[in-house]
Amino acid sequence: MAVNVIIMAAGKGTRMKSALPKVLHRLGGRSLLQHVLDAAAGLGAMHPVVVVGHGADAVTAAVGGQGQCVLQQPQLGTGHAVQQTVPALDDAHATTLVLNGDVPLIRTETAAALADACGGERLALLTIDLPDPTGYGRIVRDGAGKRVLGIVEHKDATPAQRAITEVYTGMMAAPTALLKRWVMALTADNAQREYYLTDIVAMAVAEGVPVVASPAPDETEVLGVNSPLQLADLERRFQRRQAEALMEAGVRLADPARFDLRGTLACGSDVEIDIGCLFEGEVTIGDGARIGAHCVIKDASIAAGAVIHPFTHIDGAQVGAGALVGPFARLRPGAQLGAEVHIGNFVEVKNSTLADGAKANHLAYLGDATVGPRVNYGAGSITANYDGANKHRTVIGADVHVGSNCVLVAPVTLGDGATIGGGSTITKDVPAGQLAVARGRQAAISGWTRPQKAKKAG
Amino acid sequence: MAVNVIIMAAGKGTRMKSALPKVLHRLGGRSLLQHVLDAAAGLGAMHPVVVVGHGADAVTAAVGGQGQCVLQQPQLGTGHAVQQTVPALDDAHATTLVLNGDVPLIRTETAAALADACGGERLALLTIDLPDPTGYGRIVRDGAGKRVLGIVEHKDATPAQRAITEVYTGMMAAPTALLKRWVMALTADNAQREYYLTDIVAMAVAEGVPVVASPAPDETEVLGVNSPLQLADLERRFQRRQAEALMEAGVRLADPARFDLRGTLACGSDVEIDIGCLFEGEVTIGDGARIGAHCVIKDASIAAGAVIHPFTHIDGAQVGAGALVGPFARLRPGAQLGAEVHIGNFVEVKNSTLADGAKANHLAYLGDATVGPRVNYGAGSITANYDGANKHRTVIGADVHVGSNCVLVAPVTLGDGATIGGGSTITKDVPAGQLAVARGRQAAISGWTRPQKAKKAG
Amino acid sequence: MAVNVIIMAAGKGTRMKSALPKVLHRLGGRSLLQHVLDAAAGLGAMHPVVVVGHGADAVTAAVGGQGQCVLQQPQLGTGHAVQQTVPALDDAHATTLVLNGDVPLIRTETAAALADACGGERLALLTIDLPDPTGYGRIVRDGAGKRVLGIVEHKDATPAQRAITEVYTGMMAAPTALLKRWVMALTADNAQREYYLTDIVAMAVAEGVPVVASPAPDETEVLGVNSPLQLADLERRFQRRQAEALMEAGVRLADPARFDLRGTLACGSDVEIDIGCLFEGEVTIGDGARIGAHCVIKDASIAAGAVIHPFTHIDGAQVGAGALVGPFARLRPGAQLGAEVHIGNFVEVKNSTLADGAKANHLAYLGDATVGPRVNYGAGSITANYDGANKHRTVIGADVHVGSNCVLVAPVTLGDGATIGGGSTITKDVPAGQLAVARGRQAAISGWTRPQKAKKAG
Repeated sequence: MAVNVIIMAAGKGTRMKSALPKVLHRLGGRSLLQHVLDAAAGLGAMHPVVVVGHGADAVTAAVGGQGQCVLQQPQLGTGHAVQQTVPALDDAHATTLVLNGDVPLIRTETAAALADACGGERLALLTIDLPDPTGYGRIVRDGAGKRVLGIVEHKDATPAQRAITEVYTGMMAAPTALLKRWVMALTADNAQREYYLTDIVAMAVAEGVPVVASPAPDETEVLGVNSPLQLADLERRFQRRQAEALMEAGVRLADPARFDLRGTLACGSDVEIDIGCLFEGEVTIGDGARIGAHCVIKDASIAAGAVIHPFTHIDGAQVGAGALVGPFARLRPGAQLGAEVHIGNFVEVKNSTLADGAKANHLAYLGDATVGPRVNYGAGSITANYDGANKHRTVIGADVHVGSNCVLVAPVTLGDGATIGGGSTITKDVPAGQLAVARGRQAAISGWTRPQKAKKAG
Repeated sequence: MAVNVIIMAAGKGTRMKSALPKVLHRLGGRSLLQHVLDAAAGLGAMHPVVVVGHGADAVTAAVGGQGQCVLQQPQLGTGHAVQQTVPALDDAHATTLVLNGDVPLIRTETAAALADACGGERLALLTIDLPDPTGYGRIVRDGAGKRVLGIVEHKDATPAQRAITEVYTGMMAAPTALLKRWVMALTADNAQREYYLTDIVAMAVAEGVPVVASPAPDETEVLGVNSPLQLADLERRFQRRQAEALMEAGVRLADPARFDLRGTLACGSDVEIDIGCLFEGEVTIGDGARIGAHCVIKDASIAAGAVIHPFTHIDGAQVGAGALVGPFARLRPGAQLGAEVHIGNFVEVKNSTLADGAKANHLAYLGDATVGPRVNYGAGSITANYDGANKHRTVIGADVHVGSNCVLVAPVTLGDGATIGGGSTITKDVPAGQLAVARGRQAAISGWTRPQKAKKAG
Repeated sequence: MAVNVIIMAAGKGTRMKSALPKVLHRLGGRSLLQHVLDAAAGLGAMHPVVVVGHGADAVTAAVGGQGQCVLQQPQLGTGHAVQQTVPALDDAHATTLVLNGDVPLIRTETAAALADACGGERLALLTIDLPDPTGYGRIVRDGAGKRVLGIVEHKDATPAQRAITEVYTGMMAAPTALLKRWVMALTADNAQREYYLTDIVAMAVAEGVPVVASPAPDETEVLGVNSPLQLADLERRFQRRQAEALMEAGVRLADPARFDLRGTLACGSDVEIDIGCLFEGEVTIGDGARIGAHCVIKDASIAAGAVIHPFTHIDGAQVGAGALVGPFARLRPGAQLGAEVHIGNFVEVKNSTLADGAKANHLAYLGDATVGPRVNYGAGSITANYDGANKHRTVIGADVHVGSNCVLVAPVTLGDGATIGGGSTITKDVPAGQLAVARGRQAAISGWTRPQKAKKAG
């Protein structure tokens, strides 16, 4: 759809009590503004005009190549904000949509319906029915209900008007040429000395331009963020929306109220996600995989049939088919687990490849390692990948058995089928099939007495 | 109560989008069907007849010895389903109850009341009052309200009938002989070409058999599962029900909305359970024991006065009186902790017995070990119980002190009062009272220079 | 404000099913009674009179120096309870306030308004409007609505009175001298043979003393705790209240429904707290610090810009500016981390000071240690601070590099710039700049065959 989109993003958000401009606060892992940019992008080819003001540099940087920023300085009201966009609006697009950078959950479909209601000819107002409309501007319609006669502020409303539950949401779509003319004709003849965009409604009515209401399907789409409380409320609504979409697609969530997704989650069939899990970035989960309680998973792919046990932390890793991970496991960036790999409790894997069937079940660290198939990496064993200055790789061949509490001082290579005795510090390569041991001889001291509890002075 | 019970379990559950037959989806750790089987079992001696269809083999396997399965193939409606059960119904039982395998939270008491309402003489319909009955079949009563005249589908209802808020739930109880006759007389003269069980209501009315409504006490009992969203909703209702029952019995839950029990939990007095805990299988908790935040506990017994700190994972273990476990501890199957045992952070215990007062406080693994009283098992120490082929036991006598980062290579025995020096790998038995050390001699290299950060090429 | 405060705290709380007296049950980390004592203390200088009965010793101990306890034994009703306080009431204070030890969330402001409504002259009843007042005593006002004519119990109420939604909360304020006279004049002429404090309303009316209603602003303030279910409900209301106050102050909570604070939390600006966190005791968090999901933090100060990753457990520790902690880290009492310190996964720090820039990133234990700036403490390394009888300190100088899986047997000192080879057990001091190694020589055994899987007998 060829429309201009204006996004209002100049406000300070005093009630956020934050150094961050309001529209850059995050919801579901993206800034409020990014949500609106994404909704706008869904409309198809256009280049939104973003009105920036408070924190203009930061907001402009966040917009990047996604739109054109115009500066509103000082901020003299919504009409003034749109005035700044006039030179940037493309006359070839008959309709111009006005969205708000702090109303993040507007859907593309709703924005499109609003633009359609305008159709380059009418002034279309996005409205919502509120059970308690106190404080909001009421939509006054004509007798037939088709046309809007005006928006009446709560304080100016008659008792009959106050009974109206349909209110204006702050979003509208207007014929581009008319909008330009109208906003440039606005005056600030009011107590606040501000230019109000809503004053164009009276202009349209006066000129006989049809004004129509386009009702939003859902209150969530028109709620703005002005405080951390409202941000938290919208976060929950957004998460619920995502959870429902996943469940509609067949994902089984143990508790949708305890599911958080800050990014994208692509699931196969029969995926189960237990309570308290948090997903970030891009995550994919294969058929039949199960995610246990209280996991944090970011930028990861988890193959079919894998089981992630509770309390697992994954970031930037791949988990192979049928693998078992956790509880209390941590996979860091570059961890690549093959099929049927087992990573157990208190095990950390970073920048390491584990081939099919490899196991590290207990209290271990694998960093910068290449681990062959069916390796058994013992409890408490560590790859000493860092010499204080540089990182080195550890290469462990197929079927190697590393005993408990070993240190593999990288760079080092253990050949296929090698065995490392428990408690060994390995500094030299071990040939295939050999047993390597590096430990002290066991000595018994029989005449020894244990330390005694020190007596307290005094 | 001697009744026949029919459980309808032939549906596919397309909206579940799952390879699993709908009635086998789990709620609170049991399949939907198992919940209904359990409710039926609560009625006393009978052998329910389960109508299977989609996924018949899997459903039949799940029923096992708990009932008799009859196959409905193809599925031609609820009346057709009951037709299949006719040969299996016991004429000695005057009343036959029809339950649904996808309506899991029906209580035995409610089913019993429904059967009583039938009493072998009346057709009794389980009904529920819904604030918004749109779409449901209304219960039309006679003037006095005692007798039911019929069920009117929403689409066929008059405005007056649509105002009725009492609807049919899909569950009923009927005189066995009449039910058999009626269902065999059903026809499929309707648009869907299906046999509707509800058509027997008109038959009963026509024959002058009293039709009565038995109102369900609670909407939760009559809700069905057709989608993952509904499954999640019922899961929460079920968990809330369990949480309330535990609180009624005196258990203190920090947040009933963040409590999950998938099995049975038997608690003594003054038990406290903090936020985010998940219980599975059979768990018992003794008087005054406390479970910290975010614990996962399965098939475990936790004795009086024990304290389980946050982030503890227990599966198949026993915790002694006054023991302290966690945070970040893991007890695996066969872990048996005596009184006052301490298991600290990043410690894993598997298939091991720890006698009273033994301690393993930091980063350690105890597998296949027998640990005597008052043993102090050092930080980072490991039982090397697996030689790559077989598991062996480690026996640690009373009052043994195992230093830090030791490896105990099983099979090995440490005698009472033995001491193991830190960093030792112990491969031979240590006699009682002896100090054993197995480590390298400390050497100082003074002319040594550290590795330098590698220069990047270019 | 100079008022007497009576706190009713003699009840047993049978439905709590607990050995603990009801008023000592905890809500938000404090006893119910302590909440009321704190609300009373907020009124300014006075010494509340606490009526104790069931569990009198424990309750008296909990009151300590915060008030004066009078014993009600046996418990013969609310009027009888106040009779016991008569000798302890200070006649110099014209107003006496009656609060309940099991109604914990009364605010100081509300109690003050109630006392003001009394003003030493009127009998003031704290009331609340309930949508469903069934079972509660209704407040019957005169025609003008200014004066209260009486409290009518539900069972005695006329249909018109039952339509009243304003009910008595159990809290009142009365002129001290009148209250004394009235309660001593109460009789127990009723079925329960109890002395009811509410009978003084009729006395006041009879004497022409004005009786006024002081409406509570919020139902939460007047809810009592009689069962674990009610306790859990109030806990959630209390947590929501705290969460909202923090958000009003600018703290960003990912989910206010999954935030628990049992103590005090002082936050700088732009603090973010993720889902499922639990705070206890006194915690301060500096500007821009972030707390990840599922953390448990007690008695800690976290400086500006620090990042606490998920699954971190902190108790009695200080975290420096810009430090990174977790995931799966545990800071125990006495852990003091300087600026930019990194504590990684499966690392425990206890009673240790880490200077700026020190790092312990993987599977390690630092106990009773003094760690210099920029130290790198290797994976799997342990301070052996306990010799089985006494704790000793480990001192690690600036820029020391400790390799992997080392044991530092305290007391021991590593000089500035020293390096410890991986796998070493260090028992002697290491001079500055030296490399120390204590490990066995690596030996290769090539003719070795691995253990074979034992054949099962039979």
